[in-house]
Amino acid sequence: MNQNTVMIETELGDWRRTHYSDRLSPQMADSDVTVMGWVLSVRGHGNISFMMLKDKEGEIQVLAKAGSCPDEVREKISRLKAHSSVGIKGTVKPSEKAPRGIEIIPKEIRVFSEVEKIPPFEPYAKTVKNIDTRLEVRPIDLKRKSLQHIFKARSKILQAIRNYFYENGFLEINTPKMIATATEGGAALFPIFYYNKEAFLAQSPQLYKEQLTMSFEKVFEIAPIFRAEPSRTNRHLAEAISIDVEEAYVDYNDIMKRIEDLIKISIKTVNDYFKENTDSEFITVNMPDKIPQYTYSELVDKMQKVGAKTEWGDDLYPSNLKKIGLSGFYFIKDWPIGPKPFYVKMSKSDPKISESFDLMFGDLELSSGSTRVEKRAELEERMKNKGLKIDAFEYHLRAFDYGMPPHAGCGIGLERLIMSLTGTENIRDATFYPRDVDRLTP
Amino acid sequence: MNQNTVMIETELGDWRRTHYSDRLSPQMADSDVTVMGWVLSVRGHGNISFMMLKDKEGEIQVLAKAGSCPDEVREKISRLKAHSSVGIKGTVKPSEKAPRGIEIIPKEIRVFSEVEKIPPFEPYAKTVKNIDTRLEVRPIDLKRKSLQHIFKARSKILQAIRNYFYENGFLEINTPKMIATATEGGAALFPIFYYNKEAFLAQSPQLYKEQLTMSFEKVFEIAPIFRAEPSRTNRHLAEAISIDVEEAYVDYNDIMKRIEDLIKISIKTVNDYFKENTDSEFITVNMPDKIPQYTYSELVDKMQKVGAKTEWGDDLYPSNLKKIGLSGFYFIKDWPIGPKPFYVKMSKSDPKISESFDLMFGDLELSSGSTRVEKRAELEERMKNKGLKIDAFEYHLRAFDYGMPPHAGCGIGLERLIMSLTGTENIRDATFYPRDVDRLTP
Repeated sequence: MNQNTVMIETELGDWRRTHYSDRLSPQMADSDVTVMGWVLSVRGHGNISFMMLKDKEGEIQVLAKAGSCPDEVREKISRLKAHSSVGIKGTVKPSEKAPRGIEIIPKEIRVFSEVEKIPPFEPYAKTVKNIDTRLEVRPIDLKRKSLQHIFKARSKILQAIRNYFYENGFLEINTPKMIATATEGGAALFPIFYYNKEAFLAQSPQLYKEQLTMSFEKVFEIAPIFRAEPSRTNRHLAEAISIDVEEAYVDYNDIMKRIEDLIKISIKTVNDYFKENTDSEFITVNMPDKIPQYTYSELVDKMQKVGAKTEWGDDLYPSNLKKIGLSGFYFIKDWPIGPKPFYVKMSKSDPKISESFDLMFGDLELSSGSTRVEKRAELEERMKNKGLKIDAFEYHLRAFDYGMPPHAGCGIGLERLIMSLTGTENIRDATFYPRDVDRLTP
Repeated sequence: MNQNTVMIETELGDWRRTHYSDRLSPQMADSDVTVMGWVLSVRGHGNISFMMLKDKEGEIQVLAKAGSCPDEVREKISRLKAHSSVGIKGTVKPSEKAPRGIEIIPKEIRVFSEVEKIPPFEPYAKTVKNIDTRLEVRPIDLKRKSLQHIFKARSKILQAIRNYFYENGFLEINTPKMIATATEGGAALFPIFYYNKEAFLAQSPQLYKEQLTMSFEKVFEIAPIFRAEPSRTNRHLAEAISIDVEEAYVDYNDIMKRIEDLIKISIKTVNDYFKENTDSEFITVNMPDKIPQYTYSELVDKMQKVGAKTEWGDDLYPSNLKKIGLSGFYFIKDWPIGPKPFYVKMSKSDPKISESFDLMFGDLELSSGSTRVEKRAELEERMKNKGLKIDAFEYHLRAFDYGMPPHAGCGIGLERLIMSLTGTENIRDATFYPRDVDRLTP
């Protein structure tokens, strides 16, 4: 082997990163290190090149100067294009102007993936292209600072939420995503060929999580749900992550308390993240002492007083919610029973309303929950009134013959929660690879 | 309201459990408590009835005796069938023979769901029916002690594994389950109607997790995968949970170290659970110092020496693995490149073999992993040789134009991991609601 191939290889081989960027400091002067990452930029002229290298923790300056590093290495660095993936072995030198006060004087370089093309957009530019262009090369798009912060915060929020469930005695469950019957009776479902049968993708784990309260009392699942939404909006996805909770021996008031806990934990997590990452530009969400609760009827009255065209029984439209000036997190509870699914419990005090709630953030619905029906006769009655075929649900109803406890629960849309906590306007940027009516790739 | 309806209601109303069974002790003598759960058994005669009540933490004895509790309550209790869901308000009394040394003298009862039917099988019987009968009323089946322990341990294993990833700088990701192209080229996929297009359910998050190493370096996902397995065995599911890992700037040896960490953590978690739950009857798995590694070629030699009919290039069949006496956890590495998917890297030292491994437990494969190809030209060459249509993967290959780092990863089958850690023989009992070629419900 000649010196060139030793110094400028293209394979990882036995090289391993010794330090992430955030572990480098002037105290390490003269140490030999191996750093790896992607090229942010190379500038320079003649005998000197500055390269900025990015790894998942930050940036590193590499100074290739004639005389202090091998010529072949310096020449290679001077020709590198942004995004190329490289490893550098070199020596740490203090440098006041460089990130964290150090730069690396390279001795050897390995260029794992050399970039020749110009990306369709520049992730570090001030103005970014529309989301369709960005999604074409999503992994480049995800290098953008704003998306890096959204997804790092997202991972921490998931961790915090799961810890809450574990600490509060909930069992983690996984329920099947391939199902025989529509849960809520014929909403927009994706059909599957299941071997030689027709089946559907689950739009929620509803019936399964209810059943599991019989055996485990308190359960949660964080998993994909599938809805063939025809909508082209900034708040609908065909595939989303749902945080599902179901708990025995409680009602919808207890579930609203759980949600309040989860929202507080999520806000704290994001605010902590914000403090550690001051460049994240999240709009800080205030931690509410208590999330306000309004009844459906109360809001209809308010809407009518400000002249909104709405009647008791209508859905509460975003435009009307805006008219009465609701913002931040709040609950709307005690919805009319009519449009609610068969498993939602009727109020004992008023048969027109249900023991149900929505969690809102401004005009965005984040969660729906309710007390559930636990008695088979009542469930069958409700299903009949909705025109559902009871036979098709026999595999579910059968469980109710053997002691279903009273229970309540909710589902929270993770992407919408992330939108509200990070100020993200398009739900497609709260998920890695969005799916919608127009988009099945990448 | 007369006294009866006050004392024997059927709704939860404002009752809430004050204590789980494991919080009750003789020190609480004469305290008033509210307990809830399902009826395990009622026995007695004439003026005295013993009820055993079960909640998610344990059992509680309820003693209904004429004179010390209202007659209506005693009569109601004496007629209750097993599995009925009830709440009891009563007073704690020390009782040497009862669980935890206490019994409850009931004052009021609420019967939330009264069971009239006899279950198709008795979850507390020594002999249990075959799995098809059990699955017909799965929530009753899941009350069985052995399944309770499997799923409680499962939840703790998931928690421990995620904590490992969080502590080691991995980002939690979610990748789409509805995809346009088969990942590995035409294996058994479930087709979907995606609006007006044909699509498939993802058999693994492979290509997405690889792409995401460009933007986040270290990622993990724990999510369902879908394989239209034609097999009717005790180790195949049509829908399973996969623990997926992908890491930049490492090779397959580093991933085997990660797996070793994860297996050690999982064994510790199960052994801790076993210590706290001595009735769980798990077969304790020994914690290996190091998981042994054998090369594929080495095992083929061994097989041939004991007279097994196998040649270099053949798959290593369970029957042959048994012949050479392999047991416990071990790796088989450096498999022939031929049958491996296009993204698996070829060995630099021998183009016939790949930088790949399987994690085994006895003759059960738990995980497959490899170093991946990071250069587009090499990837295209491999795809061509496999007869794959390169155009169909353009949305993936495009990412490789912009600096894919060297990376490696693996997927671990959660249900098979649970089987090996808990001694569960049928994979259907390591998941809540199994899906296979014959089963789409419940």
